[in-house]
Amino acid sequence: MNDAVTLIIGTKRFSSWSLRPWLAARMAGLTVNEIEIPLRQPDTKATIARHSPSGKVPCLIHDGLTVWDSLAICEYLAETFPQAALWPQDRAARAVARAVSAEMHSGFVTLRNACSMDMCAATPMREISDDLAAEIKRINAVWDECRSRFAADGPFLFGRFSVADAMYAPVVSRFTTYDLPISDSGRAYCAAIWDLPAMQQWRDASV
Amino acid sequence: MNDAVTLIIGTKRFSSWSLRPWLAARMAGLTVNEIEIPLRQPDTKATIARHSPSGKVPCLIHDGLTVWDSLAICEYLAETFPQAALWPQDRAARAVARAVSAEMHSGFVTLRNACSMDMCAATPMREISDDLAAEIKRINAVWDECRSRFAADGPFLFGRFSVADAMYAPVVSRFTTYDLPISDSGRAYCAAIWDLPAMQQWRDASV
Repeated sequence: MNDAVTLIIGTKRFSSWSLRPWLAARMAGLTVNEIEIPLRQPDTKATIARHSPSGKVPCLIHDGLTVWDSLAICEYLAETFPQAALWPQDRAARAVARAVSAEMHSGFVTLRNACSMDMCAATPMREISDDLAAEIKRINAVWDECRSRFAADGPFLFGRFSVADAMYAPVVSRFTTYDLPISDSGRAYCAAIWDLPAMQQWRDASV
Repeated sequence: MNDAVTLIIGTKRFSSWSLRPWLAARMAGLTVNEIEIPLRQPDTKATIARHSPSGKVPCLIHDGLTVWDSLAICEYLAETFPQAALWPQDRAARAVARAVSAEMHSGFVTLRNACSMDMCAATPMREISDDLAAEIKRINAVWDECRSRFAADGPFLFGRFSVADAMYAPVVSRFTTYDLPISDSGRAYCAAIWDLPAMQQWRDASV
C-alpha cells in the first residue's frame, strides 16, 4: 500500500479539524502531501469545494479514494495501515477510545466556540462560563479516566499514541492557549502531546 | 458472543441520537434491552448520569463494557458482530460510508436545531433559511451520490443496510415531518427507510 497520502487542510494556525488526521497520519509514519487552504478568505469556500465533497476540510486523497471528515479519515488510516496500530489493540480500550474520540467529534461545542484553536496565541481566559466549566471538567475526567485505566505502557490516553490523542490534540492546544484549569495528570498528558515532534512541526508551521 | 445488548436511550419520539445505534443493533439481529429515559424532565440529567459516563444518551452496555456515543456504538456493533456486515464489505464503499456517517455525526447543525426530530408530528416547514437550504441540498447530494455509486444491490445508501443508514434514519424522519425538498431518488430512499419493520417499531413506540 502506497504510504504517501494527500491531505487538504485549512490554515495550520486555526484548523483544529485538520490537525487531527494530519497528526494521525504523521504518527503512522506516512508521507503527507499537504494542500493548505487559507481559511477566512473571500475565496476559501470555493477553493475547498474544488477538493472536498462536503465543502469542508480536512479531506484525504489516497489510492484513488477521496475521504472526508476528521474522524472518518482517522478510521481509514487505521484500517489501511494496520501496522501503525492507530487504535488500541485491546478490545475494551479500543471501544472506549472510539467513544471518547466520537464524544470530541460531535461535542464540546462551548469550548470550540469560546476557545477556538490558535496555535500562535497565549490569551489566558479570565472568566469561565458554567457551560464551559462543565466541558472542561468532563475533558479532565476523560483524560484522567483513560490514563488511569488504559495507559500502563505510555503517556498517552491509551498508553501508546492512538486516534484518541489525535482527536484531543487541538484541545491540548486550547488548554495551553487559554490556560484552562487542568488536573496534574492532565498536565502530564498535555506535555506528552506537546513533546511529539509532529505536534511541534505543526506548531512551528503555524503563522 | 452474547447477542443481547442493553441500550440506554432517550424518549423515542425525540431522541434522534438514540434511534441510530438502536436501529443498527436491531438490523444486526440483536436483542436490545432498552432503558428509556424520559427527556426534558427535571431529573433527566441526573438519571442519564447514573448510566452514561458522558452524561448523554445513547449508551451501550455489553459484555462488561460501557460504550457511549451513537457513532462509537455503531462501530462497536460492526466490529463485535461482523456477520451483520454493518459496514459495506467493499473498501471504497466503506470509506465513503464512514465519511457520510461522520459528516452527519458532527454536522448539519442548522437542520438539527430548526427541525428537531419528532416522530409524532407533521408540521410542514413554510420558510427555509439559506443555511437550512444549503444543508438540505447537501443531504440530497449525499443520498443521490451514494445510491448512484454504491447501491447496486439494494435500496439503501450502500445497497444493503449499513451504519450510514442508521445515521441518516432520523434525517429521513425530519424530511417527512417537515416536508423538506427532496429528489426523486431521495424519496425512494426515505420510503426504504420507513419500510423497515424496525423503523416502524420505533415510530409506533413513540408517544
